[in-house]
Parts: sequence; structure tokens; C-alpha cells
Amino acid sequence: MKQVSSIADIRSEVAELKSQGKTIAFVPTMGALHAGHLSLIRLAKEKADEVVVSIYVNPVQFGPNEDFDSYPRQMEEDLRACKDEGVSVVFTPDDNIMYGAGKRYFSINIDELNEHMDGGSRPGFFEGIVLVVNKLFNIIEPDIAIFGQKDIQQFQILSRMVEEFNHDIELVAAPIARANDGLALSSRNAYLSDEERKIAPGLYRALQYVEKQIRDGVDEPGLLLKHQQDELEAKGFKNDYLNVFSMDDMQPVIKLKPGSTYILAGAAYLGKTRLIDNIILDL
Amino acid sequence: MKQVSSIADIRSEVAELKSQGKTIAFVPTMGALHAGHLSLIRLAKEKADEVVVSIYVNPVQFGPNEDFDSYPRQMEEDLRACKDEGVSVVFTPDDNIMYGAGKRYFSINIDELNEHMDGGSRPGFFEGIVLVVNKLFNIIEPDIAIFGQKDIQQFQILSRMVEEFNHDIELVAAPIARANDGLALSSRNAYLSDEERKIAPGLYRALQYVEKQIRDGVDEPGLLLKHQQDELEAKGFKNDYLNVFSMDDMQPVIKLKPGSTYILAGAAYLGKTRLIDNIILDL
Repeated sequence: MKQVSSIADIRSEVAELKSQGKTIAFVPTMGALHAGHLSLIRLAKEKADEVVVSIYVNPVQFGPNEDFDSYPRQMEEDLRACKDEGVSVVFTPDDNIMYGAGKRYFSINIDELNEHMDGGSRPGFFEGIVLVVNKLFNIIEPDIAIFGQKDIQQFQILSRMVEEFNHDIELVAAPIARANDGLALSSRNAYLSDEERKIAPGLYRALQYVEKQIRDGVDEPGLLLKHQQDELEAKGFKNDYLNVFSMDDMQPVIKLKPGSTYILAGAAYLGKTRLIDNIILDL
Repeated sequence: MKQVSSIADIRSEVAELKSQGKTIAFVPTMGALHAGHLSLIRLAKEKADEVVVSIYVNPVQFGPNEDFDSYPRQMEEDLRACKDEGVSVVFTPDDNIMYGAGKRYFSINIDELNEHMDGGSRPGFFEGIVLVVNKLFNIIEPDIAIFGQKDIQQFQILSRMVEEFNHDIELVAAPIARANDGLALSSRNAYLSDEERKIAPGLYRALQYVEKQIRDGVDEPGLLLKHQQDELEAKGFKNDYLNVFSMDDMQPVIKLKPGSTYILAGAAYLGKTRLIDNIILDL
């Protein structure tokens, strides 16, 4: 496994693989790799000949009061995990390589798709993500890129960016990796106290409960969602959102229709830790 | 010479050339090709093995009161000219291929670089250009792209976009092609009446006069520029701007310093026709 940090080096590594006729699957990460990331890497290996992983905590996607400084960083363990998974090249740029020292004149604007869900709660979050992923796509030019379904709004927004910007890249969503008790794996789970960790699977259980009711025929889940939010608060969560959104443009939906696809998604805090989870509903 | 309109077809033509080890120079145009465009194509042929030209009048870069509908269109003549110049592939997409039928969620924002010059006079102009050129770059993935120095602000903004978006493309500016009387060649010159055409070289002559004064030692050209604007108005022009701008961020400059590079640029209307021209000053 190669580890490179400069743009010239990653381009030359990728060019070398492509010149051998190899297809490239790309897994962008912010490091702090857990079993969820490893499942993305395994899916990448199934989809292409060679896997390129990037490890870069992108400052532009963090708000001023978010956890950029405390975001877990563990480069050595991450590199070891990539090597164990058979990754070909790991790209580990720093801020100067990604953004340079001077003024940034260009930004990418997202209309509507980031109004609700995490976009509504985290201003600038998805603009920061598309900025860095657009750069990474142009630097690496992979055939395929893998993202987790856990960040479903990210996946939908990036899919749309690929379409509108004409990136020649196929995006693939990997299923949510979960702990035995159902908690969606996340680098931020490391922040949870033992007590919070015990409560944490409640978010997924709330989603599962609502899913069951919808599959059993509830087509206006508003009250049901309100009730589940109350239950989560009673358990110690502080709710951000728990709602059903349209799959295409991620707008809140009041009445569900058969034949449509929805995102049943929630975000809630335990202490200072923000958890998110979702279930895709093909009705 | 091949002519293709779909994204799949242009990608496959370019992939075929690249698989033969050929380098690709790309010349994006809005058609209505004149000797200026042909000089870009010739420069492209010097710089790379194969030349790809796009012909597409991009609606997104025209303001609501601008000349999108009347912009000259002459596909047959343009294709013949490309063939005569030895172009390998011409890409002629339509609006549906470039933008699709649905809502556009993504836009690209430019800070500061488009505040003055044409950006100041034409709101949304450069955002429309970077939107389409970013797409064309991702569709064609050339090694080199050629733009005219006549649109110097466009060249500077696109150069910065290439840097910030990490396109792996070298941008090259081609010198301004001029008629014998000095008028910068432009597709919009076709709008000029015979009378206006006679007056039109006055814009370049004003720039040349100011350049000479600056080279002779004037380092605060404000009054000089004002006087030349008055002269242009007296000749029948309606001025938009005539000023000296910094090369890097295209801000107006009051006092010139030796060792710096500036853009001496002007825009003025003759009737409804907007003319632009510029001289790069390496002091």
C-alpha cells in the first residue's frame, strides 16, 4: 500500500494504475475509521480493481461551533486498517495542499436540497462537503466512489452534483453498518459516555418503530413521529429532527403515497454528541 | 472530422484519442467562428496532438436583457471552418444535453474576481461561464484548454477555478486577433452598422494611447482615462468602463507600481453592440 500526500503524487499513482487498465474505486473519509468505513472499502473492492482511500478532516464543512478541533484523528491506526483491507493507495493531504494559503474565491451553492435534515441544522455543512468532494473527484478521477447510506443527504446531494457537474463517476451507497444493538456506526460514537452509549440505539429503534407503523398502513406519520420524539427526549436525547423526507429533493413529507421512495431520518444529541440515522422506505 | 452532440459520444471520441496516447487541446466556443477563434484553434494544434472544439451558445451566461436570442448562429459555416483547420472532433450539444429538463440545484459562486469589469456590468455572466466550462472540462477532460486574451477576465476567473477545483488542465491564453484597423475580432462585431464599424477601432486606440502614456511614466492614469472616455463619448461610444485593473484579482488600481502586471481594459457600446478590449501591462 502506498501513502501519498501531494496532489502530484496521488495523480501519478492513479495514472499508473489506470495505465495498467485497472478500474479505481474511491472511498473519501475523514479518518477515525471504524467497521462502517471498512464495509465501504470492501464494497469498493467488489466494484473495482483498485481502491483509493482519502483521509482528510475537511475544515470547510465544520461550523464555527462544531467539533473540528476535537474530531478524532488516528492516522497510524487508519493506515494500518487500510493496509489490512487491501487498499492500494491512501491519500493524506493537509490543509495547505487542499486549499492553499491564499484567499478562496470560489464556492458551490446548493439550492433546496440542503434546506432540511442535516443541511437545515448545519449551515454551510453540505457546501463544505461538495467543495472538498468536487476537488477530490478532480484530483483522483475515479471510476466509482463509495459513500455510506448513513449520510443519505450527503449521498443524494453528491449524486446530484455528479449529474450537474458531469463528473464521469458512478456513486454507490453502502448500507449502514450497525453495532449489535442497532446503533449506526460513526466516528463520533467515540464521544459517547458509557451511559450515553447504552441509550444511543434508541434513535434507530424509534425509526424502526415508525417504519413498522408506516409499512402497516400509516400514511400520515406526523403524530407518530411527534410521539417518538417525545419518547426520545424522555430517554435523554435532545431531538434535532425526526421526519419523513422525499428521496429526490429531501423535503418534509406529510402524506405518504404508495410507489414512492422516502427517507425516514432522525438526528438527536446525547450530551454534545450528535447522532444521525435513517431508513429508506420504498413504498 | 467527427461531429458529436451527446455526452456519451464526445467521451468515447476523446477516450479513443487518449487510448492512442494523443494529447487533447480543447477550444470552447459559442460558434459564429471568426479569425480570432481560428487563431485559438491553430494555437491548440501547436500545443497538443488533437483539437476538440465545442460549439454551444450557453444560455446561463446571458442576462435577461442580453442578446441570447439574436446571438449569431451559423453551424454549417462553423463546422466547415473547423474541418478546414484540422479539428479532430466538434462537440455540438443542445440545452437539454447540457442542462437537462429539470431543476438546477447547483451553482458556482465567484467572490471578488467578478465585481468589476465585465463582471460588474453583467450580473451572473461569469457564474454562467464557470458553470458551463466546469461541465465541459469534466465532459472532455482535455490536457489543455485555449481561451482568448480578449476575454481576459474570463481567462483569469477560469484559471482560478481550475486551481481551486483542481482540474488537471493547463489553460493557455491566445493573443487578441485584430482587424487591420485594430478592432478586436468578436462575433458581436457582426451587429455593427457600417458607420459603427468605422468608429469601432476607437476603443483600442484609446487603450493604446493610455498604454503609451503609462509606459512614458504616468503612474496615476485616472484623469487620462477620464479624458479618453470623454473622447470616446464624443466619437459616438457609450462607455461602460475604461480603467486599469490588477491582474490577480481584477480590482481597479489608482496608482501603478513598477514590477507589477495590470490589465488596461475597456468596454463601450456602439448602438446596442457592446465592445470590449484590453492590453496587458507588464510594468
